[in-house]
Amino acid sequence: MNSTAPSIEALNGVLADTPFLNPYAFSVKACAPGECTVHVPFMDSLERPGGRVSGMILMGAADVAMWLAIMTLRGTAERWVTSDMKTAFLRGAREEDILCTARVLKPGKRSMYGTAECHGGTSGLVSHHVLTYAKVEA
Amino acid sequence: MNSTAPSIEALNGVLADTPFLNPYAFSVKACAPGECTVHVPFMDSLERPGGRVSGMILMGAADVAMWLAIMTLRGTAERWVTSDMKTAFLRGAREEDILCTARVLKPGKRSMYGTAECHGGTSGLVSHHVLTYAKVEA
Amino acid sequence: MNSTAPSIEALNGVLADTPFLNPYAFSVKACAPGECTVHVPFMDSLERPGGRVSGMILMGAADVAMWLAIMTLRGTAERWVTSDMKTAFLRGAREEDILCTARVLKPGKRSMYGTAECHGGTSGLVSHHVLTYAKVEA
Amino acid sequence: MNSTAPSIEALNGVLADTPFLNPYAFSVKACAPGECTVHVPFMDSLERPGGRVSGMILMGAADVAMWLAIMTLRGTAERWVTSDMKTAFLRGAREEDILCTARVLKPGKRSMYGTAECHGGTSGLVSHHVLTYAKVEA
Repeated sequence: MNSTAPSIEALNGVLADTPFLNPYAFSVKACAPGECTVHVPFMDSLERPGGRVSGMILMGAADVAMWLAIMTLRGTAERWVTSDMKTAFLRGAREEDILCTARVLKPGKRSMYGTAECHGGTSGLVSHHVLTYAKVEA
Repeated sequence: MNSTAPSIEALNGVLADTPFLNPYAFSVKACAPGECTVHVPFMDSLERPGGRVSGMILMGAADVAMWLAIMTLRGTAERWVTSDMKTAFLRGAREEDILCTARVLKPGKRSMYGTAECHGGTSGLVSHHVLTYAKVEA
Repeated sequence: MNSTAPSIEALNGVLADTPFLNPYAFSVKACAPGECTVHVPFMDSLERPGGRVSGMILMGAADVAMWLAIMTLRGTAERWVTSDMKTAFLRGAREEDILCTARVLKPGKRSMYGTAECHGGTSGLVSHHVLTYAKVEA
Repeated sequence: MNSTAPSIEALNGVLADTPFLNPYAFSVKACAPGECTVHVPFMDSLERPGGRVSGMILMGAADVAMWLAIMTLRGTAERWVTSDMKTAFLRGAREEDILCTARVLKPGKRSMYGTAECHGGTSGLVSHHVLTYAKVEA
């Protein structure tokens, strides 16, 4: 665990250095120890029929927000991977930006457990996620 | 519920008619009432660092395989959407094709519950999924 | 949906009128619209080897707290049953009372989705639960 | 891991030596490496209003069946505890015995992942469970 939590700029740098995430244009809006909020812009190219925001985008946003929330506690050098993820799709989001906030509820040295919520600008809570991450030992 | 279950060709036609799935090159390998097996080719462009198959691809494959498994019971005209999905990532898949088989365990007129398993050609069972789908009323 | 939310006394009356819950001595400590906190006393007779609080007690408390949280929104006359429940056991609770707080995150007329947290007096967060309830039509 | 898998008699001995399970009268009907089937007798004293089998009994049966299924792989000396459990209640069981079969899908030295299904004598599949167990190090 490093002594200083990464800044929003540092977490956005992590996103920029992760090529497969670039198509989604995620950006970090806020962070605090054990928490991170990611902005998900609505993009025509990723929409589903009827202008619906894809469930895959919501799951991807929750996964990334938790990954960055762990970095607020453990720094950016360790490697953590998702081991379990449960998503409830509560409402359809339509042609709107999403803010996804992840929170670590139980931090551990080898395992992290937390939740994430995706809120649409007009729809409110659209999905709720529960995630477990595991540390990959070198 | 229509009287004849869709053929593999019909289900592959559904995939071809779903533009946002085209980048993944999913194809139906087998189907039976309440079951569907989808082939997921390994693609360099979707891989993660180290040649790892993306967890998002596995979740996408499970979601699609269950969607098609429901069609084997209900035909292709109804609209069903994922309401809940839990994924356990059990092993990392690396530079290998995946076969994902979904099975409906509890069919209903408004709700379907089932599981999906992703097997890597060399890694064996790489992820296990539990899904609930809900019918969207017209 | 009735016009006035049940009081703590009314919810404790529901518990008293539910014979199979009597062995656990649950009581309502607090409630608000969409929320309910249940007290779970430590009982020697229900403990596991080593003085550990049983996981079944924690799941039972979460289930009851959510059931009562739904009543704060819908009154006590409707019949709601658990359709899905996920529990993460985060720490072992030992010879301590538990407070379990449930919150409805997505209220609906036919379905309710929410979370519950069990906190031990000395251990902090010991379990986290995600629940879906369905209304039973008469 | 011991060299010989426990017999049905040995697993029933484990149940008999676990006092808090005695009220449920669970018994082992079958086992194989990584699998165990537990019989759950219908008991008036545990029923819910209307003769419904309690969801807690189903979760308890699934938890015990997986615990014993792990013993078929690892022997009876190690200590394993439930770390995560998801249950879908698919149909109400009514005044009927239940057979609960657990299967380990991903065995590990520190973690076990598997599923359990509860089948009622007349109702068929009444609940489906996904469980993760963790080994407690001495």
